[in-house]
Amino acid sequence: MRIARFSIDGNVAFGAVEGDKQGELVLDIIKGIPFADHELSGTKVPLSKVRLLPPVLPNKVVAFGRNYADHAKELGNEVPDAPFAFFKPSTSVIGPGDEIRYPSFSQDLHHEAELAVVIGRMCREVPRERVKDVIFGYTCANDVTARDVQKREKQWARAKGFDTACPLGPWVETELDLERANDLTIQLTVNGEQRQLGRTSEMIHPIEDLIVNISEAMTLLPGDVILTGTPAGVGPLNVGDEVAVTIEGIGTLTNKVVKRG
Amino acid sequence: MRIARFSIDGNVAFGAVEGDKQGELVLDIIKGIPFADHELSGTKVPLSKVRLLPPVLPNKVVAFGRNYADHAKELGNEVPDAPFAFFKPSTSVIGPGDEIRYPSFSQDLHHEAELAVVIGRMCREVPRERVKDVIFGYTCANDVTARDVQKREKQWARAKGFDTACPLGPWVETELDLERANDLTIQLTVNGEQRQLGRTSEMIHPIEDLIVNISEAMTLLPGDVILTGTPAGVGPLNVGDEVAVTIEGIGTLTNKVVKRG
Repeated sequence: MRIARFSIDGNVAFGAVEGDKQGELVLDIIKGIPFADHELSGTKVPLSKVRLLPPVLPNKVVAFGRNYADHAKELGNEVPDAPFAFFKPSTSVIGPGDEIRYPSFSQDLHHEAELAVVIGRMCREVPRERVKDVIFGYTCANDVTARDVQKREKQWARAKGFDTACPLGPWVETELDLERANDLTIQLTVNGEQRQLGRTSEMIHPIEDLIVNISEAMTLLPGDVILTGTPAGVGPLNVGDEVAVTIEGIGTLTNKVVKRG
Repeated sequence: MRIARFSIDGNVAFGAVEGDKQGELVLDIIKGIPFADHELSGTKVPLSKVRLLPPVLPNKVVAFGRNYADHAKELGNEVPDAPFAFFKPSTSVIGPGDEIRYPSFSQDLHHEAELAVVIGRMCREVPRERVKDVIFGYTCANDVTARDVQKREKQWARAKGFDTACPLGPWVETELDLERANDLTIQLTVNGEQRQLGRTSEMIHPIEDLIVNISEAMTLLPGDVILTGTPAGVGPLNVGDEVAVTIEGIGTLTNKVVKRG
């Protein structure tokens, strides 16, 4: 199932996305919340009539750095022996179609296409074989980064945590199994031109390792999001650009870059 | 006013701390929430009869690194030109009296006494002269750090973000003005023995600078917490230790270190 979060007439709801043709998709409104008991209401609205929101409101976003060797190399970095993680705050999360606001303190904004894992249940110290049980689904993410600030500041709270730095969407795909999630094409375009292309199979540490690693340290909550790293091809975003992350089997997350107002 | 958050008979409430003598303090229960309209109910409970909780439940904790020159030097680090920040997640927050659980993946846990600033209103791009208006109050914090993990992992999500890594409390003092908050004695003891002693006046970047710096990048929400850095004297914590952070004009935050169960 593809679960979207949306607003219509001032109300916020979850809906199951139905249909195959872009432009003709409908949302079957969900009664209850997707992380607990819920059912489809049978009440349907055309997706074109609603505003899609970030598909989850994470308590925390945990992002892994340098998880694709080609990306580490393109920035002149070594490939780390073990995964390492940083946080993006909930205030940085935006949804599909929302605007990425170019930060006032950067002159070198970059895109980073990433597969996002959405956690489905509260968990801690998850053993490798139980990882599949704590995953709710998958969505697309853009780990938008102020590259110049990242180089200047030892920790990346500002460089990767500014408002609008974490587009997520367009919805959560709940029917991919873990094996398949570790082998999907991930692609990013800027104004229709391809900039990043990779496969999640190139990840140095697959999804299981990342969740074992972070849950060894901290409790994950339903709706928390794990960003799994970006393939090679990161590059600049400019005001006016339209940036789109497409992941096979999930969908496309599109955002426009605007001047910070 | 000193505002504590506490549980009694399974209910959670805020209360104003009254009295001067440890052991004879009472809580005047607050109607409403401290960040919005509220008043004292006149119903009082002895502080000794309740369990104090973290005084706030932050959406995010933003912590600044190397903000005291003597501390930067003791770890062999350079003093950075500009402030730099990292996050501690809400899942790392514990209250006064709660147990710090020694992480399974570290053999070198350290204490770091810090003044914590509690944000009172939603804000972004706060000008220096308005910083005082967005501060709700101050509390004590311990930026508990797995020093060996911090050295190994380029970003500090696990080293400083594990469950129980962010003790806060015992309450929020709302009556310190900014000038005074920038000049308080801060002290830390382990099993009654002094390990850290400094003054917030030694901060390289005072509170105003930190809030200007971080709010330039991201929206701060009511209850968000800013950790302002630690003075020299950081050192190991062992299972069984009782660690206490005391800040002049605020109070004492005490926690015990236990084996992770």
